Formats: sequence, C-alpha cells, structure tokens
Amino acid sequence: MMFKVLWPGKTHDKEIRHLIDSYVKKINRLDKCQLIQTKEAKGISEKHSSRIMEIESYGLEKYFNNDYIICLFHKGKQMDSMEFARFLEKTSLQSARAVTFVVGGFLGLEERILKRADFLLSLSKMTFSHELSRLMLLEQLYRALTIIKGRQYAK
Amino acid sequence: MMFKVLWPGKTHDKEIRHLIDSYVKKINRLDKCQLIQTKEAKGISEKHSSRIMEIESYGLEKYFNNDYIICLFHKGKQMDSMEFARFLEKTSLQSARAVTFVVGGFLGLEERILKRADFLLSLSKMTFSHELSRLMLLEQLYRALTIIKGRQYAK
Repeated sequence: MMFKVLWPGKTHDKEIRHLIDSYVKKINRLDKCQLIQTKEAKGISEKHSSRIMEIESYGLEKYFNNDYIICLFHKGKQMDSMEFARFLEKTSLQSARAVTFVVGGFLGLEERILKRADFLLSLSKMTFSHELSRLMLLEQLYRALTIIKGRQYAK
Repeated sequence: MMFKVLWPGKTHDKEIRHLIDSYVKKINRLDKCQLIQTKEAKGISEKHSSRIMEIESYGLEKYFNNDYIICLFHKGKQMDSMEFARFLEKTSLQSARAVTFVVGGFLGLEERILKRADFLLSLSKMTFSHELSRLMLLEQLYRALTIIKGRQYAK
C-alpha cells in the first residue's frame, strides 16, 4: 500500500506538529506514507474566503494524480477503527492506486474537491480543530496499519 | 458551571500533556474546570487487569461526590459539538451539580463505573488511544464553552 496525506500549509501548533511527525515515522515503519503540505493561501483576509479556497484547492489538486482520494468531511461516512482498516486494505487491493487523504485548512474543503473524492470520511460527529483532525487522522491510519499487519497497539 | 475531569495517572506523552494543560488553562478562562489525575495502578502486569481496574475505579470514585458523571465510552451517545454544548448547558442548569467527566486508563472503565454514570458519551465511532481521547475531550469541552458563551473559536 502507498499512502499520501495532503493538507494546505504547515501545522502551526508545535506540539501537534511533533505528534504528527512522530505518527508519520511510525506509519512509515509499517508502510509507505508521504505527508505533503500543499500551498497555503497566506496574507488574504478571511473575508475573501472563496479566494483562499481557490488557491488551496489548486494546491491540493496538483498532487491528486490518479489516486484514490479520501477527503475528511464532517458529513462523510463514519466507521469504527476495524472497519476503517478493512476498508483501506480492500481499497488498496482493488484499486492498485495510491490512497490519498485530504484534510482541509481552517475553512474546510471546497465543493469541487469533495466532488472529486472517491470517498468522504468523518472521524467524528463532533467538530475538532483542523490541526487536531490532522493528528486524529494519522493516529487512525497508524492504528489501521497495526490492525492490517497484526501488530499490537494501544487500545 | 463547574467541571471536573478525572482520569487515572499522568499523561505520559509529553506533547499531549502540554496540549492538555493548555486546554485546561483556556477552559479556566471561561469557566471553572479542575483536572484531577487519580490513583494509577502501577507495577501490576496487564495479566491482572481486573486488579488494575479495581484500584483505578476506587481512585476515581473517591472524587465522584454527588456529581453528574459523564463517562467516555465507545458505545456511548454521539453528539455533534453544538448538541454537546447545549447538553452541558442544560445539564448544569437542571442539576446544579458539578459535571464530572471520567476517562479510563488504557484498559478503559470498569462496569461499576459505567453503571454509576449519569451519561455515557462517545467522541467517535473510532478508537483513539486513551491519551489522545483525553485531549479530544478537553478540546470539545473548550469548544462547548466558547459556543455557550458566544466566543469565537476555530472551525
């Protein structure tokens, strides 16, 4: 399996960034996973949100290739960790494409990106900050790989 | 409103601990919130899980008083962040008791504790490590208070 994780810009919170880096390392011990921080719209007022979304969408799309795209979306499908692991395993086997996760910036993801997605995934009914969501996604990806590969990991 | 958050032992991951401390501070700018790290069963093999649970349950119960107890439990009720905020507001007003959140250790919570709970809350269908769940709970508590008090916070 080959995973990519895309989101616009750096993670500003230092502690969350360290935790994310540490999960990327752990995931790479089990499988290939590349974290790509795509172009972030900087210095534009939040009033011009459509311009921000336009820039960030374009930055994300550049890396989509022919991948199987999974977007994090609050109205997406919820799965438990076991179902998520089986879903990833099945998707990788069937499509033979890289599986690419996309997490939005603080404004979320544009309609166009959501429409391109092969799958919309929700981590929770609750809304978490987009930086914490990034961490939660990587924790689940790591957990899924430990399940697929039969390794032990935290309950 | 008065909140307490209980869990057995310290949070070992340094970054998660810092993030938790930072949320406790932020919450305390909006309302009273006390984080109590209760007795942890140390030096007992995981084979003796019932003994660990026994010690940790006793440690938690010491702080229950007459509080409205909300236990984190994977089969509990899911709410979105807005519903969670309204639920906390209503519960505090109606019961006039402190609202106490309880998060288990790596083995989870004992049946006895779950039975004593006034409410079982699930943050997600997915299983997150118990340390990350602690952080997720505090982020949601902070988010709920910003909703109740009409403050702005991350989307």
